[in-house]
Amino acid sequence: MTTALELHPDRLLPADGPTRALARQLYATVADLPIISPHGHTDPAWFASNDLFQDATALLLRPDHYLFRMLYSQGVQLEDLGIGGSGADPRRSWRILAQNYHLFRGTPSRMWLDWVFAEVFGMKVRLSDETADLYYDTITDALATEAFRPRTLFERFNIDVIATTESPVDTLEHHNTIRQSGWSGRVITAYRPDPVIDPEFEGFRDNLDRLAGLTDEDCHTWSGYLAAHRQRRAFFAQMGATSTDHGHPTARTADLPVDEARALFSRVLADEVSPQDAELFRAQMLTEMAAMSLDDGLVMQIHPGSYRNHNRELFARLGRDKGADIPVRTEYVTALQPLLARFGNERDLSIILFTLDESTYARELAPLAGHYPCLKLGPAWWFHDSPEGMRRFRRMTTETAGFYNTVGFNDDTRAFLSIPARHDVARRIDCGFLAELVMEHRIEDWEAAELATALSYDLAKKAYRL
Amino acid sequence: MTTALELHPDRLLPADGPTRALARQLYATVADLPIISPHGHTDPAWFASNDLFQDATALLLRPDHYLFRMLYSQGVQLEDLGIGGSGADPRRSWRILAQNYHLFRGTPSRMWLDWVFAEVFGMKVRLSDETADLYYDTITDALATEAFRPRTLFERFNIDVIATTESPVDTLEHHNTIRQSGWSGRVITAYRPDPVIDPEFEGFRDNLDRLAGLTDEDCHTWSGYLAAHRQRRAFFAQMGATSTDHGHPTARTADLPVDEARALFSRVLADEVSPQDAELFRAQMLTEMAAMSLDDGLVMQIHPGSYRNHNRELFARLGRDKGADIPVRTEYVTALQPLLARFGNERDLSIILFTLDESTYARELAPLAGHYPCLKLGPAWWFHDSPEGMRRFRRMTTETAGFYNTVGFNDDTRAFLSIPARHDVARRIDCGFLAELVMEHRIEDWEAAELATALSYDLAKKAYRL
Amino acid sequence: MTTALELHPDRLLPADGPTRALARQLYATVADLPIISPHGHTDPAWFASNDLFQDATALLLRPDHYLFRMLYSQGVQLEDLGIGGSGADPRRSWRILAQNYHLFRGTPSRMWLDWVFAEVFGMKVRLSDETADLYYDTITDALATEAFRPRTLFERFNIDVIATTESPVDTLEHHNTIRQSGWSGRVITAYRPDPVIDPEFEGFRDNLDRLAGLTDEDCHTWSGYLAAHRQRRAFFAQMGATSTDHGHPTARTADLPVDEARALFSRVLADEVSPQDAELFRAQMLTEMAAMSLDDGLVMQIHPGSYRNHNRELFARLGRDKGADIPVRTEYVTALQPLLARFGNERDLSIILFTLDESTYARELAPLAGHYPCLKLGPAWWFHDSPEGMRRFRRMTTETAGFYNTVGFNDDTRAFLSIPARHDVARRIDCGFLAELVMEHRIEDWEAAELATALSYDLAKKAYRL
Repeated sequence: MTTALELHPDRLLPADGPTRALARQLYATVADLPIISPHGHTDPAWFASNDLFQDATALLLRPDHYLFRMLYSQGVQLEDLGIGGSGADPRRSWRILAQNYHLFRGTPSRMWLDWVFAEVFGMKVRLSDETADLYYDTITDALATEAFRPRTLFERFNIDVIATTESPVDTLEHHNTIRQSGWSGRVITAYRPDPVIDPEFEGFRDNLDRLAGLTDEDCHTWSGYLAAHRQRRAFFAQMGATSTDHGHPTARTADLPVDEARALFSRVLADEVSPQDAELFRAQMLTEMAAMSLDDGLVMQIHPGSYRNHNRELFARLGRDKGADIPVRTEYVTALQPLLARFGNERDLSIILFTLDESTYARELAPLAGHYPCLKLGPAWWFHDSPEGMRRFRRMTTETAGFYNTVGFNDDTRAFLSIPARHDVARRIDCGFLAELVMEHRIEDWEAAELATALSYDLAKKAYRL
Repeated sequence: MTTALELHPDRLLPADGPTRALARQLYATVADLPIISPHGHTDPAWFASNDLFQDATALLLRPDHYLFRMLYSQGVQLEDLGIGGSGADPRRSWRILAQNYHLFRGTPSRMWLDWVFAEVFGMKVRLSDETADLYYDTITDALATEAFRPRTLFERFNIDVIATTESPVDTLEHHNTIRQSGWSGRVITAYRPDPVIDPEFEGFRDNLDRLAGLTDEDCHTWSGYLAAHRQRRAFFAQMGATSTDHGHPTARTADLPVDEARALFSRVLADEVSPQDAELFRAQMLTEMAAMSLDDGLVMQIHPGSYRNHNRELFARLGRDKGADIPVRTEYVTALQPLLARFGNERDLSIILFTLDESTYARELAPLAGHYPCLKLGPAWWFHDSPEGMRRFRRMTTETAGFYNTVGFNDDTRAFLSIPARHDVARRIDCGFLAELVMEHRIEDWEAAELATALSYDLAKKAYRL
Repeated sequence: MTTALELHPDRLLPADGPTRALARQLYATVADLPIISPHGHTDPAWFASNDLFQDATALLLRPDHYLFRMLYSQGVQLEDLGIGGSGADPRRSWRILAQNYHLFRGTPSRMWLDWVFAEVFGMKVRLSDETADLYYDTITDALATEAFRPRTLFERFNIDVIATTESPVDTLEHHNTIRQSGWSGRVITAYRPDPVIDPEFEGFRDNLDRLAGLTDEDCHTWSGYLAAHRQRRAFFAQMGATSTDHGHPTARTADLPVDEARALFSRVLADEVSPQDAELFRAQMLTEMAAMSLDDGLVMQIHPGSYRNHNRELFARLGRDKGADIPVRTEYVTALQPLLARFGNERDLSIILFTLDESTYARELAPLAGHYPCLKLGPAWWFHDSPEGMRRFRRMTTETAGFYNTVGFNDDTRAFLSIPARHDVARRIDCGFLAELVMEHRIEDWEAAELATALSYDLAKKAYRL
């Protein structure tokens, strides 16, 4: 069955008539605001080389673990999608997606993809078994044209600034190329030091060696290691970074006396590191990073609570980021206490907290952000970056933290083409939420209008110092 | 005050006008679909003997811990309801229910009962102090008639198939009687081995002896014990079972080397079993059961997280299932890791996860089911089998797991007469949810229609291999 | 920009037209019911002396940690608000609030304050930078008039009864003054023994000495200590108390043999008390308090789960109650087991449970209260005493616990002027919830009307034995 693909102008707005009308008005004022994308995972090489993208499958399916995780959960083999360099025929992989597109009903992936299909590629019919080849050909053909080069899309998407995420041992050559190119697009980096901070990260000790090589610091001494961080942070800042990012298993922090920290560092350099030491070292390093942020002004992001690579067999076979990262219960109040005891009252420090554990929104995160000057709340993240997830975020944080302790939207994606769709979803949901507050006479209409702009643009710009 | 009892045709549909109209349309397409009841606790003896039910109290009040728990919480004595064989006058017990019927306002029990009163018994006025005797007499009189025999009700309720739940040491004589009777109703069993798996279950060692007696296996050796399970599972499958069910305190699994498993089994046979060993044994047995399911194709259900018999005094006096089972926080991600590390990627294995801890829906269960091929999500369970509970289930699982990693509805009840009411509630709530998605243009109307049928009928049939 | 301040008559009622109309009808029947305030923190000295309040800042800003915590989170210095006796100019502090009033958009503080501004002080324009002085002067001038004396406001607010909260070592002189004064206002106390029960409370041992002094009991022996409690409870009851209140870090209870309890008491009297002993002592004392409640009939309230004084630096500088109390995950099922094993089935005991951890509403609290005769659920508390918080409370507790295991509303505030606003919010939200149930045909309209009165007035009166 071939059916029309049309994006309804009122999509995601509340169903109730008068509330929808008000939400529509609010949305109209923010729909065309430029995009601030302060945290994400696009590849800077795209913007450096400005090379054409490949085919539909290579661009839209293979890198998107939201898509292949769902297909995998329903019995599709990842190898048939070309995951892990299997050499599967890309058209055949695309057909598998098309045949199974009903699996995504009710998911944000479906909304993002439909937006990309309709708005970026001009598709007029829905993706289905019957239209799989039409889609594959149309998209692949379009990708071969000048209008679909990365920089052109960047401009078409009205992106003010986008941040990528790099390891301290990244040379940032692509960012350098972009800056030297004369192109006006603002693509900046962010400092993500997990590979040299987490003793359980693959290749941790090799990474330290590379860090030493890049900095000429002795990364086997505590002071040299910290100095290397400082040096790389400064270099990242010079390449545009305004933030750091920390993806630890928990939110635990520590504030050890320097001699204990030094001894701990020695232990994590050893062949065998205990899980306790690994956890304590990550905890200590969050506090060290906060200390450096207070000096260099980089905004700190903490993204805790994902059990990475939960599917061991798949990890062994295909590596990281294969859709098998599962959220776990996450505790913040006790975990953050050591860091906050030292820096919590610093008004010049800015730490943005994220969570995959929604039970902490109202219980822990909103009360913490509604008190400590250094804390703000990042938007609904990952599995919760969805219409219902965003609504829960607003409903559970606003009454205690207000709007101004939040930081606007992050798309947090490597799916470049979906970035406008994701920001659009956030703007629609936020306008719907604001419209509900007005309808219940909890705020005035003119306040909702101010807030719509703040949530869509201003707060992200300010919070990330962009 | 006597007031009319009328079931409104739009009950449980969303209040918003256009959304309700759409939900009503969707519901009309599924309202009369047959009932698939793949998991529950009706008594197979009813369908074997086809004997008449007794009076209103014996059928509707005494077996329903949803009812007497609420009455007890407000000061009613269980003995006055005839719980625990007290010999209370059933009419007097019924009057107590009637006098306190206001306690159930806003609860699903109230909706289920009103459906039974109106649809099964044709009552036209509400249950109250004034109408207590009218109800008691009308219901008790009706129960004495042919039209209210179990098999007749089964057919009237349009039940395609119903599963009961039995222990491995059950002889399944009632199921055998049903199969030999020539009656066309499909009543199957399910394998619930807690009494011979949980070392803390009442009579655990006696149960093992009975298992040995039934199978001629030496249930005091690890290999004999496993062989006995295999034999009973095969017998249950022969008697129609397509599933097993596991009601452990936690979701913990283990995958011990065989010699450690053997040693553990020896320890749990001893007079005194430590809580740690009991827990580890249950954990190991979930993995053993998964291994057997991979062989014999029985779908595995895990129902963890209930603190059974929390009220010790009541348990000592009146025994199990007296409304004092209380949900506890339940962890899945680490708990299931050992089982999933061994079998997670098996596409022929099917494990249905349930929870009493709604905080795991979006955080743990939907991400797990949205990745592992062997996992599916059971519907909102027990305390959450209610309009609000079902809505939370859909809102918190759909965006990550989609609809197709869920398995339709379970009534999970021993209250036979309420089964159609329970399925009706689920269909109404699901149609309302789908209508909301359409109204927000997150899915198309024709997709909602497909999904309504899937959620009401198809998914249960497929997931339970019926 | 100066904009009008008008409280919309339909505020907080559901947006949907017919649902709102019904909610409005229900609300009309309860809007003017007297206020029962069975738990709160107003100062009895106000009603004893009946002195005029000071200026706007002293009355409305400085005591309200909801307000200054939010300002602090956004960089305002507490000293500039006159917190901690800094001697800041009150008018200047008020201007800071006015300039930052947008921070409260979407918070309950904003709704409560606007009600106070409009209803108590007759303001016609919104608080803003431009109107800061107008507000300060109007409010401060009004406070100097007879109409704004505490007793006059009490009567104007239509308060039937208000409970304050005092320590066992409080002499209750203000309550005595009130009772002797001939004034008809009913101001009662409540017994809050944390200062003499929690070994980690500031000045615990001094407090014991004061308790000994007041009672002539030897508070260094277990029996003397318990006798002192009994004596003070009797005195509190004589001064009108009908309840006790317990603000422990967790809900843990214990039921030790008397010799172990005695030995534990000896240990907590020592110079150094281990955290384990402190926790166990608090746990034991909850059970002791329950035993005394069974004797003297005082209703017991348990308010667990706040990590007090999380901001250590601020606590050292400015003391308790500075907006840095953060909720933590709280467990009830195992924690309450010892107390419930001893007293759970007592129908004459009444224990009201509160939580800051909403994940326990449906999972633990509603099932517990829906079974144990001695348990009831307190309303949405503290951070959750808000429109969204109250809705979550009803949605997550009603289906399992019903309405009649809840106890109406608590304002729980020291912000006297906001008390009617807080009760009004609760009444509106409850009427909206009831209207939704009627619209979905889950209850009848006449039941909703009964319930509206019960939730607004009757249940509080009954539950607190007022």
